[in-house]
Amino acid sequence: MRLLRSARRLLVHTLPFAALSAAACTPARPATPSAVAPTGPASVHATQLPNWGIVIHGGAGTIARGSMTPEMEAEYRAKLTEALMAGHRVLAAGGSSLDAVQAAVNVMEDSPLFNAGKGAVFTHEGKNELDAAVMDGRTLAAGAVAGVTHVKNPINLARAVMEKSRHVMLMGAGAEAFAKQQGIELVPESYFFTERRWQSLEKAKADEAKYGAEALLGPEYSVPEDRKFGTVGAVALDKNGNLAAATSTGGVTNKRWGRVGDAPIIGAGTYANNRSCAVSATGTGEYFIRATVAHDICARVEYQGVSLAEAADQVVMKKLVEMGGDGGIIAMDPLGNVSMTFNTSGMYRGRVGADGKPEVAIYRD
Amino acid sequence: MRLLRSARRLLVHTLPFAALSAAACTPARPATPSAVAPTGPASVHATQLPNWGIVIHGGAGTIARGSMTPEMEAEYRAKLTEALMAGHRVLAAGGSSLDAVQAAVNVMEDSPLFNAGKGAVFTHEGKNELDAAVMDGRTLAAGAVAGVTHVKNPINLARAVMEKSRHVMLMGAGAEAFAKQQGIELVPESYFFTERRWQSLEKAKADEAKYGAEALLGPEYSVPEDRKFGTVGAVALDKNGNLAAATSTGGVTNKRWGRVGDAPIIGAGTYANNRSCAVSATGTGEYFIRATVAHDICARVEYQGVSLAEAADQVVMKKLVEMGGDGGIIAMDPLGNVSMTFNTSGMYRGRVGADGKPEVAIYRD
Repeated sequence: MRLLRSARRLLVHTLPFAALSAAACTPARPATPSAVAPTGPASVHATQLPNWGIVIHGGAGTIARGSMTPEMEAEYRAKLTEALMAGHRVLAAGGSSLDAVQAAVNVMEDSPLFNAGKGAVFTHEGKNELDAAVMDGRTLAAGAVAGVTHVKNPINLARAVMEKSRHVMLMGAGAEAFAKQQGIELVPESYFFTERRWQSLEKAKADEAKYGAEALLGPEYSVPEDRKFGTVGAVALDKNGNLAAATSTGGVTNKRWGRVGDAPIIGAGTYANNRSCAVSATGTGEYFIRATVAHDICARVEYQGVSLAEAADQVVMKKLVEMGGDGGIIAMDPLGNVSMTFNTSGMYRGRVGADGKPEVAIYRD
Repeated sequence: MRLLRSARRLLVHTLPFAALSAAACTPARPATPSAVAPTGPASVHATQLPNWGIVIHGGAGTIARGSMTPEMEAEYRAKLTEALMAGHRVLAAGGSSLDAVQAAVNVMEDSPLFNAGKGAVFTHEGKNELDAAVMDGRTLAAGAVAGVTHVKNPINLARAVMEKSRHVMLMGAGAEAFAKQQGIELVPESYFFTERRWQSLEKAKADEAKYGAEALLGPEYSVPEDRKFGTVGAVALDKNGNLAAATSTGGVTNKRWGRVGDAPIIGAGTYANNRSCAVSATGTGEYFIRATVAHDICARVEYQGVSLAEAADQVVMKKLVEMGGDGGIIAMDPLGNVSMTFNTSGMYRGRVGADGKPEVAIYRD
C-alpha cells in the first residue's frame, strides 16, 4: 500500500503540465512503471485509478517562432484546445479512450489548419488521398484505411473497419465502397480544396520543375518543410484504464504513385496496447515505417522495462535521428504518463487530464 | 577464442536439418545469441563467419497428411527445393541476402502452386490483387506494394520501391504507374487465372450465399482453410552477415473492399534487422497486423535477449494463439539460427545452408 501511495505521488509529479512548453521535447522523467508494479504497467489497473487524460498532436516540423502571424498561432491554439476538450468531454463522462481519440481527431480533421480531412494536402495529380488508423489498447483491435478520396473523416472509417469488418486495413476504391455500405459520410472531392494547400502543390511542382524531382526529394526522402506539416493524432487513457491511439493524415504534398505513409500502418504511425503504451506519430513517414516507431516504443517499455519517456527518447531522439528521420510522437502509458517527444523545432500539441485544464504548445522552447 | 569455438560448435548443433520434419514447429533450442556475445548478435559479425543460408515458406494452414495426392505433394516439394536452391546459388556466389530472398520468392511467384504471383487467389470481384514487401536488415530500408493487379512478380516491384523511390509503400494504380516507369514486368490480368483458384472463389461464393457472409466469416476472421493457403516468403543471411526478408501474396480468396493483409506491412508480415532477426509470416493476416508479429519477434530477441526460437514461440504459439490467429513464421538471426514456427497442422517450408543440402517439409510431424 505504501508503494502504491508513493507511486501516486510520483504520478502527480510526472504530469507536470507546466513543463509542456518548457521541455516538452524530453519531459521530466516519469515514474518507471516497474517502480510501481514489478510485473509491468498492465497489472496496475486493478489496484489504482488511472491518471486519465488525452494527448493530441497536429503535426511536427520546422515551426520557428515568428514564422506565423499571431492570429494564425491563436487559431492553431484555439483549435488544439477545442480538440482536446472534445476528447476530455468523452473521458469525463466515463466514455472510452477510443471514443475520445476519435472525437479529438474529428475536430482536427474538420479544420483546414491541419493536414488531415478538410485541410489535407494535394497529391501530384491534384487529388487528396487520405490515410488513417485507430487501435484499441484493450483488445489490440485495429482499423486502418489508405488512399481514400471522398471520406470526410477517415478516422471514422478506420473505426468502422475495426468494428464492422473482419479486416484491419482497407485501401482505395474498395475502402470507399465499404464506407458507403456502412453509412460513413462521403463528400465530393472539392470538399478538400483549400487555397493554401493548392499553393503548396503549385510551389512543390515549380520547385520540381526547377531542380528536378530527384534532386529535390533526394535519396533521403527530404521533403520541404512546408509540405509535411499537419498529420493529426490522439492518444488517450480512460477511467477504465484502457488506452487507444488514432492518427489521420493527407500525407505529403505532391505525393504520387499511391504512396502510403506511416499513419495507417499499425506499429509504425499508430499503436496501442494496455500492456505498454499508446502512440501516434507524425513526421517523415518512410522513416517511421522502417523504424516501426510506435510499436518499437511500446516494445521497449514492455520488454526493457524502461519508462515511456526513455523509450520515446531512444526511438525519436536517437534511432530516428541516426537514420535521418524527423518528426515526433505523442504517447501515454497505462499509468497516465505522457510523452510528447519530437526531434524537430516544433510540434502542434496539447494535453488535458482529469482537472480539465488543457495545455497546448507549438514550439520546443 | 575458446568462447567462439564452442559457440561455433553450438551453431553447428543448432542447425539440425534432420529436425526439420520431426519438430519444425518448435525447433531444437538454438544457442542464445547472448551466449556467444553478451552485447547481442549484431556484434558477432566482425569475429565470426555467419552461418549463412536461406529459409522459405509457401504458406501455413490445415495441411493434413493424406489430403494431397502423392503427385501434388511431390510437386510442392520439388518447387520448394527449386526456390531454395535459387536463393542458395545467390548466397554461395557471395551475393546479398536481398538478392537471395528475391530469387527464391520469384520461383514461388512464378508457380501456380502458391498464393502469390501466378497462383494468386481471386477477390470477390474475380480479380487478383497482389501484395508484397521486402526489407534489408543492414540498412532497415524497406519496400512494399499493395493491391497491384498487373505485376508479374510483386516482390520485384517492392524491391524497386525500396531502391528507386523515396517511399516505402505504394498502392494500387499508382504503384503500377511506378512499375511501368521502372520497367517492371507487367502482365494482363488473365495471366493470373488458374482453374484451381477460380474454383475456390466459386466455392467461397456458394458458401457465402448459403450461410451468409457474416456467418461464414464470423467476427473472428475465420476463413475456410482452402482459401488462405500459400503466401510465400523467404529470409536469408548472406556471407557478409546481412539479413533480409521478403513476402509475397495474393491475400485471401473472396476478399473485398481493397483488403490489405500483413504481408506488405513492415513489422507485421515482413521485417529484417541485423540487430535481431529477419521474419516472413503467413496466416490470418489481420491477427498478424494487430500483433505486429514480425517486429515483435525481433524486439523480444533484441530487448529481452531471448533466443530466436523462444521469441518465435512466445509470439506464434502463445500470443497469436490466445488472440485466435493461426499461421506461422520463418526467421533467421545474425548467427544463422533458424526458426520455422507455426500453430497450424502444416506449413510448406524449407531451408538450405552452406552445405547446399536443401531440406523441405510440409506437415508438422
